[in-house]
Amino acid sequence: MNAALAHPHMISLAAGFTDNESLPVKEARQLLNGILNSPRAGQAALQYGTTLGDATLRRLTAEHMQKLDGVKLPSKVFSPDRMIITSGSQQLLYMVTEATCDAGDIVIVEDPTYFVYASILQSHGIQARGVRLERDGLNLAELEKTFERLKRSGELKRVKLLYLVSYYQNPTGVTTSFEKKGAALALLKKYERAAGHPIYLLEDGAYRELRFTGEDVKSALTISGASERVIFAGTYSKPFATGTRVGFGILPGAVFTAVARIKGNHDFGSSNLLQQLLSRALATGMYDKHRLALRKRYADKARVMKGAMEQHFPPQVEWWEPEGGLYFWARLPKSLASGPKSKLFKAALNNSVLYVPGAVCYADDPTRRKPDHEMRISFGGASEKNIRAGIARLGAVLKKLI
Amino acid sequence: MNAALAHPHMISLAAGFTDNESLPVKEARQLLNGILNSPRAGQAALQYGTTLGDATLRRLTAEHMQKLDGVKLPSKVFSPDRMIITSGSQQLLYMVTEATCDAGDIVIVEDPTYFVYASILQSHGIQARGVRLERDGLNLAELEKTFERLKRSGELKRVKLLYLVSYYQNPTGVTTSFEKKGAALALLKKYERAAGHPIYLLEDGAYRELRFTGEDVKSALTISGASERVIFAGTYSKPFATGTRVGFGILPGAVFTAVARIKGNHDFGSSNLLQQLLSRALATGMYDKHRLALRKRYADKARVMKGAMEQHFPPQVEWWEPEGGLYFWARLPKSLASGPKSKLFKAALNNSVLYVPGAVCYADDPTRRKPDHEMRISFGGASEKNIRAGIARLGAVLKKLI
Repeated sequence: MNAALAHPHMISLAAGFTDNESLPVKEARQLLNGILNSPRAGQAALQYGTTLGDATLRRLTAEHMQKLDGVKLPSKVFSPDRMIITSGSQQLLYMVTEATCDAGDIVIVEDPTYFVYASILQSHGIQARGVRLERDGLNLAELEKTFERLKRSGELKRVKLLYLVSYYQNPTGVTTSFEKKGAALALLKKYERAAGHPIYLLEDGAYRELRFTGEDVKSALTISGASERVIFAGTYSKPFATGTRVGFGILPGAVFTAVARIKGNHDFGSSNLLQQLLSRALATGMYDKHRLALRKRYADKARVMKGAMEQHFPPQVEWWEPEGGLYFWARLPKSLASGPKSKLFKAALNNSVLYVPGAVCYADDPTRRKPDHEMRISFGGASEKNIRAGIARLGAVLKKLI
Repeated sequence: MNAALAHPHMISLAAGFTDNESLPVKEARQLLNGILNSPRAGQAALQYGTTLGDATLRRLTAEHMQKLDGVKLPSKVFSPDRMIITSGSQQLLYMVTEATCDAGDIVIVEDPTYFVYASILQSHGIQARGVRLERDGLNLAELEKTFERLKRSGELKRVKLLYLVSYYQNPTGVTTSFEKKGAALALLKKYERAAGHPIYLLEDGAYRELRFTGEDVKSALTISGASERVIFAGTYSKPFATGTRVGFGILPGAVFTAVARIKGNHDFGSSNLLQQLLSRALATGMYDKHRLALRKRYADKARVMKGAMEQHFPPQVEWWEPEGGLYFWARLPKSLASGPKSKLFKAALNNSVLYVPGAVCYADDPTRRKPDHEMRISFGGASEKNIRAGIARLGAVLKKLI
């Protein structure tokens, strides 16, 4: 913020905002008028709802998730009874962590991972163990080694969760393959006995519906026997409107009960009006229509960013092309630091362009140092023009410093 | 819920819902159309906001609070820099407790108190000490005795907060006098030195703007020297629309910083759309107009309930008349239990009327038993007709059992 104020022509490739132009202003107006034109529906929307969330939205969300996962027969896994509506998927991540972890516990995360989740862990005195991310998800051998080390050191009993941002990951854009989800879950089960308690897979699917190419990957919920070990976090914020902050979770019974209780204490239920808005967006088909429009929009923006990087970035900078989401993750030569106090960051600032320093995206893991030569650059919020200009500025700075 | 399903003609005097008919459906429609008719304003409302909340809403809320408190000169106490927007005031209560208390700490509360706050304490392993409530707020002698006892037992260092629901309290309807707020704050300061850290007054003003008679009482924020010790929780949910869940807090610097960080981890900011809605309600004067209409509405409903109680309740039942809020608190003869397993509760259920058992409204205080002969009855959600019928049913049951 201070940087942006000091540099009025600043182009931010840092913020994880969604595309402004694509926000469904007309659709939201139409849907809200539909609710508020009727005193009966309007009063219901402006009254308190329930802690778990609107029953219709929970049912529609369960159906929507089941459809995404290609599950055709009735399935207990996607039962509305396992579903809770939250203030963005963020609140679900917070509550699940509160429900399952105590201070001193350990959560296994991706290296790198979603930085606000790292902050949740830190604020609760929970340790992280980072497992390197590859093109298709966690390095499984490293995950197993991590478990073995924790077992040998007697710390396995403190391990409560494996947290995966499995679709177009924030920050790397990586999607975890279905095979790797299954293998990770099998490893959790393998070490559970020695741990003496369930170790849950917390699957963060916040970006799932921002896919613009390739195939959707099934969620870990579809893995056999997953219903008691997989917690799925999803959201309508990103694929519909970030300003509505409506997310959801699908949870196993024991965690569901604890999270429902925490939700009661946090806020005893999210805004009913916003839930009605999303219910109607889903029921009218407006939501699905909007997702198709978004797909083209983000595909274009990602292509523009990729083209600009190919044109302006020096060849030593590497990146993987994402199939969805909002981010590219650029890996610089290891000798080039990217942190907030680095020459690179300051030079970028002076040239009025902002990125997220890579080190910010690593959780606190006392067993390794945080890499400091990467950057997260977002094509979500900036216009195509600003993406081109921002990448050109960043490219010039990188060329000078490499 | 189960009770309501089993008894379709159930009249609930239990829920703390606001009056359905008075919800501002037309106003919300008009304000939302004002936002969403403009692509620019619409996009801004449907995009992420900031963790602390919309700058305009924070400013308008600060001005509104300052006006309520009759403070005319510019005042640092009411600075927007000390203001955070939350998902109802409930989220503020949760975050303040997270920020200031650890497991094993002690919060001093009113006897009885807001039961969801008691649940927050319990879920964090925080103990309560209850201080008896009188017609005009805490029994100050008992508050001082409580402090003395805690000092003697060496527990003073664990005391972090005094929690007061100071306006038309949930559940008793009691309003704390300004003198008692000042005296309570002076006691906190007196024992702070021995505690070795600040003890904050957490003033919950959730019902403040549901005043329907009498004079407004100034908040503890106006007490000299209070800016560093008073945390004020307020909300637009109750006086405007409960379905919007927009609340706020005014906090001293140290707590503000901690709460802002927790808000970042909870949800990194409440729904922007709802904040814009409230901003416009305040800026257009629609909010103030609505409050005046509400005042008449709740005055009528409270009068109906009072009249019905005078007509139907046996003379052994006592209550105080509230000047605002949603509740009457009825005190029965001590021999008549009111808990969920009591004859009274079951008889009420069988006669299709629900109340909140008094014992639910006492926090866990290991130094006293929870009284079990009171009930909270709400005139908020039920229609005037149902208030009359519900009180008549309850009266018949009470007469039979007393």
